[in-house]
Amino acid sequence: MREIGDLSLSHLSAGIQQGRITPTEAVEGYLSRIARLDETLNSFLTLTPDLAQRAARESEGRMRSGRPLGPLDGVPVAIKDLLDLEGIPTTNGMEFLRNRVASSDAEVTRRLKAAGAVLLGKLNMHEGALGASNDNPHFGKCHNPWKPGHSPGGSSGGSGSAVAAGLCAGALGTDNMGSIRIPAAFCGLAGLKPSNGLVSTRGMMPLSRSTGCIGPLARGVEGVAMMMAVLAGYDPDCVDSRQAPIVLDFTLPADFPLRGMKMGVLEGGNGEEPAIRNAFEQALQVLEALGAELRPVGIGDQENYRRQCLLIIEAEGAVANEEYLADPELPLGGDVRPLLEYGQRMPAGKLVKALQTRDTLSRRLEEVFREVAVLLSPTTPVASFSFEQGAPDNLAVHMAPANLCGLPALSLPMGFDGEGMPLGLQIQAPPFQDPLVLRVGKAYEQATDWHERRPGESGAG
Amino acid sequence: MREIGDLSLSHLSAGIQQGRITPTEAVEGYLSRIARLDETLNSFLTLTPDLAQRAARESEGRMRSGRPLGPLDGVPVAIKDLLDLEGIPTTNGMEFLRNRVASSDAEVTRRLKAAGAVLLGKLNMHEGALGASNDNPHFGKCHNPWKPGHSPGGSSGGSGSAVAAGLCAGALGTDNMGSIRIPAAFCGLAGLKPSNGLVSTRGMMPLSRSTGCIGPLARGVEGVAMMMAVLAGYDPDCVDSRQAPIVLDFTLPADFPLRGMKMGVLEGGNGEEPAIRNAFEQALQVLEALGAELRPVGIGDQENYRRQCLLIIEAEGAVANEEYLADPELPLGGDVRPLLEYGQRMPAGKLVKALQTRDTLSRRLEEVFREVAVLLSPTTPVASFSFEQGAPDNLAVHMAPANLCGLPALSLPMGFDGEGMPLGLQIQAPPFQDPLVLRVGKAYEQATDWHERRPGESGAG
Repeated sequence: MREIGDLSLSHLSAGIQQGRITPTEAVEGYLSRIARLDETLNSFLTLTPDLAQRAARESEGRMRSGRPLGPLDGVPVAIKDLLDLEGIPTTNGMEFLRNRVASSDAEVTRRLKAAGAVLLGKLNMHEGALGASNDNPHFGKCHNPWKPGHSPGGSSGGSGSAVAAGLCAGALGTDNMGSIRIPAAFCGLAGLKPSNGLVSTRGMMPLSRSTGCIGPLARGVEGVAMMMAVLAGYDPDCVDSRQAPIVLDFTLPADFPLRGMKMGVLEGGNGEEPAIRNAFEQALQVLEALGAELRPVGIGDQENYRRQCLLIIEAEGAVANEEYLADPELPLGGDVRPLLEYGQRMPAGKLVKALQTRDTLSRRLEEVFREVAVLLSPTTPVASFSFEQGAPDNLAVHMAPANLCGLPALSLPMGFDGEGMPLGLQIQAPPFQDPLVLRVGKAYEQATDWHERRPGESGAG
Repeated sequence: MREIGDLSLSHLSAGIQQGRITPTEAVEGYLSRIARLDETLNSFLTLTPDLAQRAARESEGRMRSGRPLGPLDGVPVAIKDLLDLEGIPTTNGMEFLRNRVASSDAEVTRRLKAAGAVLLGKLNMHEGALGASNDNPHFGKCHNPWKPGHSPGGSSGGSGSAVAAGLCAGALGTDNMGSIRIPAAFCGLAGLKPSNGLVSTRGMMPLSRSTGCIGPLARGVEGVAMMMAVLAGYDPDCVDSRQAPIVLDFTLPADFPLRGMKMGVLEGGNGEEPAIRNAFEQALQVLEALGAELRPVGIGDQENYRRQCLLIIEAEGAVANEEYLADPELPLGGDVRPLLEYGQRMPAGKLVKALQTRDTLSRRLEEVFREVAVLLSPTTPVASFSFEQGAPDNLAVHMAPANLCGLPALSLPMGFDGEGMPLGLQIQAPPFQDPLVLRVGKAYEQATDWHERRPGESGAG
């Protein structure tokens, strides 16, 4: 028998809307699965079963009276532990914040609740959102359900792990330089880094105001789009000056034509593993068979963009974490404190040059997007690594342009490596063309079946 | 008899278009006036009479054949000496760049030439565009034609002085924190700091990419609008990422109604001289009599915005001038080197906070501009000062928001102080609403006669 946790977000939503599954059944299904699997995976830092059960009962009342709040009503989700959920601690993956109880909801949390979504809890993450392994020194490693002992990616590792293992239907992550897309790729999910400023960051623990954003992970592009329809929207009370009062339509047509669409293939030479090169070639063939017109596109030195993006994160992160850095006794992880201290010592000129590199890249991307509608690349140059191995230096080589220049960037499954670990395809578009990457992604997804494979429970337990 | 130099730009343009004045007469009129007055004023660093006379003859040919290039055809103008004019040095007000000959035109120079404007030469400026007195240690003080020995303001002091003295019909300045508006105010002119990104900065000596822009000064708002119609436009080859492909209509209707228009009056307490407070009160009464609805508006600590804007200029200016700072022997002025060296020593965190202050102000201004169409303030809290006295610290207190947040900001005459020195009214609007500030400015100008007064030649000779 298929369990609740085997359903994709969009299938679960349909089941609830059609009355085949009650919200309470959904919550209980996930809670029992969490009890069975999460001791190994360690994807949740805080579970909120009482809140979830109450929210499910309320949702059930709406369903009975035929007044659902929308397609997310009754759908259990979870959020990365740097987003505020009223009454629950927000740790940011930091031990010393274990008792920092949020006094109100983040805007994204408020939006999920207002849409009827049921919050199951707060998810593990790389400490301070500053790393990609999710080897958290305070709360423990979060494991990849496809192979425990391997990383789910990061920094939103808990989000990737929980959704892939079927411990929630969708999750929120955040992405300063790949922190949504890397877990999506490593865990075989769809994950969207939205356009900068499209989703309010109010109530998110700050790291880098220039590069950071909040976005969804789910099994299947449709679920990501359903979450985006709820998350996107102008927030007058948010300090994020990248916001624009733009309204987007996240409906995904059943049959979105790719015929004649010009797509740029990011020129490589970025040290991809052979399995990733092969899977990417196959993905390009699928898109070509759907009618896309592919052409190689160069956007300059991507390794340099990664370095410049990291400089911006370090400088802004040092300001965001100023209070913690001032206390040399605070237990900040061995991979996090040095990054922030580097940001503190950085001369302003280095930041000026990094910001100018960003501006030059923005101009270049404007030109590129006059020639092509979307940009294609592998999400990462390697698949999930073991914790002993750790993240390679070039892991985020394709990540930085979207954060620097505000592009929407979707990662979705494009195959598996020889060891059965998932691989990700990245689709990027100009700022605020988030629906386009989702539509192209869905068309690709419909032509493949990579997203349907699930990690075995044996692997996860 | 009225000389050429007594005409405003728009009147001169009309005279040329109607055949009452030939472009050659115009050029010769200005050249003879320059010969008579500029030894005292020192507003030109380089005169280009041969180029100007040739351009005038070409313009004359177009006039004779009835094919003028537009309203600027045959109109003599000059440009600040940090904008490239092919074949002529661009000194940036720095002695050691005296022989740096420009190999091509700045985009604004190219646009002026393409519109038929006649370039008379390059104008004095505060060294490196980093100060407001135009007391240039290498090329000499530029004097205010209203009272030699007094500053024309800066950094575009030569632009203010030359236009006010009738040595050219219009001029280009640049503005990182008031460098167009302060000379406009001090010299009794209209001067527009355009929206950031509206005018291409390609071929401008760089200082601060975030805050800087190029704009026109002229006698009368109409002349400023005529120049803006030529200067504004997207430049795909410009590195300025603030550019937007926006097309604006700079036509000024003869009768623009202010009735019912909501205008915000910036809350004061910024140490204005009594003469300025009085003139500003009178200006508000004029606008009220025209039907405007005034209300006080607070935008936060303007002195703090000035400091944060200066930090950004220092940090970005240190990068722009890196090559010169590396040589301790280079003769950089005593007020310029310390600013740039401060920028070199600045920690990145200070810049991060300055940029975040900018972002917060941008959000606040978005709110303010939902309530009012334009913002009114005195341009400066003091009138022109003597060179011995020097610029007061709070001179630019009303300048920074426009540079930080990209607002168009017009300064135009609003009266005189007890010593007969001109005073400026500043009108600001949301980004890319440049035509609105010009239309409001023209309506105010039509109701007053401050712009018609001229400095006496006795004063200037």
